[in-house]
Amino acid sequence: MSDRGLTHIDPLGRARMVDVTPKEATHRRAIARCKVFMLPETTSKVASNAMSKGDVLGAARIAGIQAAKRTAEMIPLCHPLLVGSVAINFDIRDDYVEVEAQVETVDRTGVEMEALTACAIASLTIYDMCKSADRSMTIGELALWEKTGGRSGVWRRPAGSLEEPLVNTPPPALGVTGSGASGGDGLDARIDDILAEGPTDPTADF
Amino acid sequence: MSDRGLTHIDPLGRARMVDVTPKEATHRRAIARCKVFMLPETTSKVASNAMSKGDVLGAARIAGIQAAKRTAEMIPLCHPLLVGSVAINFDIRDDYVEVEAQVETVDRTGVEMEALTACAIASLTIYDMCKSADRSMTIGELALWEKTGGRSGVWRRPAGSLEEPLVNTPPPALGVTGSGASGGDGLDARIDDILAEGPTDPTADF
Amino acid sequence: MSDRGLTHIDPLGRARMVDVTPKEATHRRAIARCKVFMLPETTSKVASNAMSKGDVLGAARIAGIQAAKRTAEMIPLCHPLLVGSVAINFDIRDDYVEVEAQVETVDRTGVEMEALTACAIASLTIYDMCKSADRSMTIGELALWEKTGGRSGVWRRPAGSLEEPLVNTPPPALGVTGSGASGGDGLDARIDDILAEGPTDPTADF
Amino acid sequence: MSDRGLTHIDPLGRARMVDVTPKEATHRRAIARCKVFMLPETTSKVASNAMSKGDVLGAARIAGIQAAKRTAEMIPLCHPLLVGSVAINFDIRDDYVEVEAQVETVDRTGVEMEALTACAIASLTIYDMCKSADRSMTIGELALWEKTGGRSGVWRRPAGSLEEPLVNTPPPALGVTGSGASGGDGLDARIDDILAEGPTDPTADF
Amino acid sequence: MSDRGLTHIDPLGRARMVDVTPKEATHRRAIARCKVFMLPETTSKVASNAMSKGDVLGAARIAGIQAAKRTAEMIPLCHPLLVGSVAINFDIRDDYVEVEAQVETVDRTGVEMEALTACAIASLTIYDMCKSADRSMTIGELALWEKTGGRSGVWRRPAGSLEEPLVNTPPPALGVTGSGASGGDGLDARIDDILAEGPTDPTADF
Amino acid sequence: MSDRGLTHIDPLGRARMVDVTPKEATHRRAIARCKVFMLPETTSKVASNAMSKGDVLGAARIAGIQAAKRTAEMIPLCHPLLVGSVAINFDIRDDYVEVEAQVETVDRTGVEMEALTACAIASLTIYDMCKSADRSMTIGELALWEKTGGRSGVWRRPAGSLEEPLVNTPPPALGVTGSGASGGDGLDARIDDILAEGPTDPTADF
Repeated sequence: MSDRGLTHIDPLGRARMVDVTPKEATHRRAIARCKVFMLPETTSKVASNAMSKGDVLGAARIAGIQAAKRTAEMIPLCHPLLVGSVAINFDIRDDYVEVEAQVETVDRTGVEMEALTACAIASLTIYDMCKSADRSMTIGELALWEKTGGRSGVWRRPAGSLEEPLVNTPPPALGVTGSGASGGDGLDARIDDILAEGPTDPTADF
Repeated sequence: MSDRGLTHIDPLGRARMVDVTPKEATHRRAIARCKVFMLPETTSKVASNAMSKGDVLGAARIAGIQAAKRTAEMIPLCHPLLVGSVAINFDIRDDYVEVEAQVETVDRTGVEMEALTACAIASLTIYDMCKSADRSMTIGELALWEKTGGRSGVWRRPAGSLEEPLVNTPPPALGVTGSGASGGDGLDARIDDILAEGPTDPTADF
Repeated sequence: MSDRGLTHIDPLGRARMVDVTPKEATHRRAIARCKVFMLPETTSKVASNAMSKGDVLGAARIAGIQAAKRTAEMIPLCHPLLVGSVAINFDIRDDYVEVEAQVETVDRTGVEMEALTACAIASLTIYDMCKSADRSMTIGELALWEKTGGRSGVWRRPAGSLEEPLVNTPPPALGVTGSGASGGDGLDARIDDILAEGPTDPTADF
Repeated sequence: MSDRGLTHIDPLGRARMVDVTPKEATHRRAIARCKVFMLPETTSKVASNAMSKGDVLGAARIAGIQAAKRTAEMIPLCHPLLVGSVAINFDIRDDYVEVEAQVETVDRTGVEMEALTACAIASLTIYDMCKSADRSMTIGELALWEKTGGRSGVWRRPAGSLEEPLVNTPPPALGVTGSGASGGDGLDARIDDILAEGPTDPTADF
Repeated sequence: MSDRGLTHIDPLGRARMVDVTPKEATHRRAIARCKVFMLPETTSKVASNAMSKGDVLGAARIAGIQAAKRTAEMIPLCHPLLVGSVAINFDIRDDYVEVEAQVETVDRTGVEMEALTACAIASLTIYDMCKSADRSMTIGELALWEKTGGRSGVWRRPAGSLEEPLVNTPPPALGVTGSGASGGDGLDARIDDILAEGPTDPTADF
Repeated sequence: MSDRGLTHIDPLGRARMVDVTPKEATHRRAIARCKVFMLPETTSKVASNAMSKGDVLGAARIAGIQAAKRTAEMIPLCHPLLVGSVAINFDIRDDYVEVEAQVETVDRTGVEMEALTACAIASLTIYDMCKSADRSMTIGELALWEKTGGRSGVWRRPAGSLEEPLVNTPPPALGVTGSGASGGDGLDARIDDILAEGPTDPTADF
C-alpha cells in the first residue's frame, strides 16, 4: 500500500542531487582555507622537513590535489565535475600551518566542495605525518573564503567572520599580488604558471 | 609471427569502447526500475524504519546516487560521463519494494547504464540492511523503462513487457504529474526541485 | 539543546556498521545467481561471440570479479574484506543467460553481498554489451543460493523458492560435480584449479 | 652520477610508509570529533529535516562511514586496513552540529586517521547539504579524543585542550553509559548493538 | 614566521596542476605502445589461450580500458577528463607481446597519459596472468608514438628512436589501413566501428 | 541449450581468481625496478628540482605508494591484500632515472604485482611531470628483482638477465647494507626506519 511509502512519511527528507543540466557552463573558482594547530616544535620540524615520515607539505599537496578530483565520490550529493586546476599553498606559523586550496573549472556547478575537501584531506595528511610527534594537533577554521562564477556571481567571506589569513592568493583574472612575506606566495604562483606556459616548455600542451 | 595474433583468431571478439567523440552533446535522460521481493514483515519494518541497521531507504538512496556517478568504473565498456541529476524513488508494497532511478545529463552518450546501476546498487543496499531478518529476498524486473535524447530519440518500454509500475515519474520537461497515492511522488519531486531553486535558497548555486 | 538531536527523534533509524571485531575469522563461501532475459537472437550472438562490442561473457567475468573486490565501496554498511577467490560462471539458454558468482574468503564477516554484487555487475555488463541489439532485456531472479561459514553455519535457499539452476557448482570442499550438460562447468572449474596448482605451474605462488 | 640522487640531497625528506608487518594485530579503537558551526536557523532546519536537499544527518552518516573504509586511498602514508565497525553520532546545538566518529578494528595499525577522516567527510557532507541556505558555515575543532590498542596503549585528549563534548560515547569494553540528554546516545548505541545480535535477528551473521 | 614557509625554501618545487580552463576543447588522440618480453613457450600459451588463469589478452584489454578511464586518479598532476574511446590492440611475436593503446577525447587537455597508463596496466595484467609460468618477464619500450590535437598539434615519435612496430593503427580521420598481416588489425578496428554504427545495431545510441 | 554455453566453447579461457584461502598467511616481500629514459637536460632538471610542475620524485613517490595500495583494483585477477610497507627509491643517472619499489606484507598471497604496479605508476608520474620538456622519454626494464615468502620461498632475478642496478636495497631481515654511493640509499632507509621507531617518536604507534 503506497500509504506506507517513505515518500508520504517524509516528502522533504529525500536526498536528491538537484538537476544542473539547465545551467550554463561558466568559469568557476573557489578558495578555501583551514589551519592545523600544533606544537611549535612540530611546526619547526615541518618547516625544516625533519619529520621521519618524509616531506609533510609535499605529500599534503599531492593528497589535496587528488582529493579535489574525487570530491564527488566522497560527498554524496556533490555533482561530479572535471577540475581544471588545483593549487594548494601553505603558510607555516609558530603554532599552526595554514592550508589554502584554490580550485578552478568550467562547468555547470561550483567547485567550493572541491576546495573545502582538498583543504580537509591536505590537513589530515599533515596530521598523519606529524601524529607520532604530536598527537594533540587539531584542525580548525575550515571555511570557504571566495567563490566566483555561476548564477550567484562573486561571494566573499564577510570581514571579521574569521581572522584574515596572511596567505592571500590573488585571483588570476586580476593578477594582483598579495603583500607581506607570505603573500609573495600568491605572486610566485602566478609567475610559475606563466613560466609553465613559457619558453621553458616549448611543446607544452597539458 | 602475426598469424599467432589474437586479432586473427578472433576479429570480432575484441572488447572495445566505441568512439563517441563525433557525437553531439545533447540532453539525455533514462529511467530504470526494479523490485526487491521480501516478506510482508520485512516491508513493514522498512516502512516503519524499524530495521536495526538503520534507515534502509535513506541509505539505499545515497548508495544508488553514488553508484550512478561511478558506473563507468564498474561497467568495462561504459563511457565515463558527468551525471547532472540523479533521483531515486521507492514505493513500498506488501511483498516488495520498488526502486526507480532517474538520471539526466548533457553529454555525447546516454545514461541508461547509470540508471540501471543505480537501481541495482540501491536494491543490493536494501538487501544488505534487511538480510539478517529475511535472507530469502530476491531482486527482479531490473529494466530500462524510458530513454530520451541522442540519435535514437525517445525509447519507452513496450506496454505489457513488464507489469506497469504505480510509481510513474513524469518527465521534468512536461512537468505533468502521475496520479494515485504514489504517483504523487513524481509531483513532489518536481515541486521540491522548484523549491530548491526558490526563496528558501536565495544564494543557491549548485 | 539535545532534545533537537536526531538521536532522540529517531533512536533506531541511525545507519551503523555492526561491530564484527569480536567475531572469529572463519572460512566463508557464498553462491549467488541471476538471469539476464533477452531475445533468442541475442543469446545466439552472445554464444557465438558475435556482438560488435566484443567478448560479452569474458568482459562480464572481469567486471564481476572486480566488483566483488569493491563491494564495500558501493554498499554503505557492508564490511570491507579481502576476497580469497571469485569465480563467475555462465550458462546460456534460449532466452536468457544465467550468471553464477561464487566467492570465498577467510574473515569475520560473510561474502554474500560480494557474490550478489558480482552477479549484478556481471549482468549489467552483459546488458551494456548487448543493448544496442536488444534494449528490452531485463535482469531478474538475483538471489543468494548458498552461504557457509560463520555463526549461522550453512544456509541454502529453500527448494521451490526459485527454479533450480542447471548450473550447479559443487563446493570445492567436496569436489563433487553437478550433473547434466552444463553441470560439467563446475567440474571443469575444479579441474582447472587443480591444474593451476599443478606441474604446468611449477613456481605457482599466487 | 649518484651524487645527483635525491637520496643525497634529502636523506630524511623521503615519504615512506613505515613497516607494520612486525607488529601484532590487536583490537584498536579511535574516537574523533568535530563541529560544524552554522546559523541557528540552519541548525533548526537540520534538526527538523527541512533542508531541501534531504536528510542531512542521514546522508552525513553514510558519507562518514564510507570515508572511513577508504581513508588509506586519500591519506598517502596511511596504512590500509579493514574497519570492523564505524559509528557516526551527532549532537545538534543552537549554533553548531557536533560530529563524533568511533572506529574499531583488529589490525597491526591504529584507526585514528579513519575516525578523523570520517568526521571530516561527514562534516563536509553537512556543509554541502546546507550551503545554499548558509554559505558562511565553518568546520572546526576536528580532533582525536581517544585511541586504544597497539603498543602505546590508551591515549585520551588532555582535559582542557578543547571544550568537553556533551556527546560522550562510552567504550563498548566498559559498556558504561554517558549521562545527560545526549549522553544517552552512547547508551542507545550499545543497546542497538545488543538488539542487532538478538532475537529480532535470529540468523544474524554479518 | 613566513620565512619558515616552504614557499620560500622552494619556490619552484611546489607540485601544482596547471590551469587548463583557458584552453579550447578540441579533439585529441594519443597512441602509446609497449612490449612484454617473455619466453617463446609463454607467447605460445598466450596465443593459444592456454594459460590456466584464463584469456590473457581479453583480460588485459578490459584492464587497459578501465585504467584509461581512471588515469587521473593514479597520476597526481594529470587533469581528469572523459575518454571518448579507448582501443587496445595486441601483436604476438616469438618472444614478446606488443601492446598498443589508442585513446581519443574532446577536451581541454591531451590523452597521452591515458594511453600510456592503459598500456602499462594492460601489460601488468599480462604479466600477472602469465607469471606462474614465466616469472622473468620484463616490460619495456613503453612510449608515446603519436599525439594529435591541442595547441601543439601533431607530434610523432622521431623515426629510429625505437624499433618501428608492425602494428600500425591508422588514424580514424583518415581511415587508411596499415599493411601486412598484423596491420590488418587497424583495418578490422575501423570496419568494426562502422559495423557498430550499422544495420546490426539499428537502435545504437552509445 | 547448454551446448551453446561458453564453457563448452572454451573450457580453459575463463578468467578466474585462484582460491588462496587454503594458503597460510606468511611474511612476503617483493622488489621491482624500472627505468625512465630521458635527455640529460631532463635528468638535471629532475635532480635540481627545477621542473615547473613541481617536485618530480616527491610526487612520484606518493603516486607509487598509493598505486601499491590499489593494485587489485587495476589488475583484474590480482588478489586484494593490505600492504604493510611500501618504499620507493630513485637513482638519477645521466640519461635515466631508476625507480625501485619494495613492498612487504603478511598475507596469503605475494606482493610482486604491488611492487611492479608501484614502479609503473611512479614512472608514469615522472613522465607526466617532465613531458612538456621531453616528450620522447621511454619507460623500460620494468621487472621483478626479488620475491620472498610463500610456498615458492625466495626468488631472485637470474644474473645477467638485466643490467644490475646500482641501487641495491638490502632486505630488512638481513639489515646488511649495499655499497657504493647510491647503495647507501638502502642503508639510509634502514636507519630511517629505526629512527621512526626510536626516541624521536616516543608515542609512535602506526
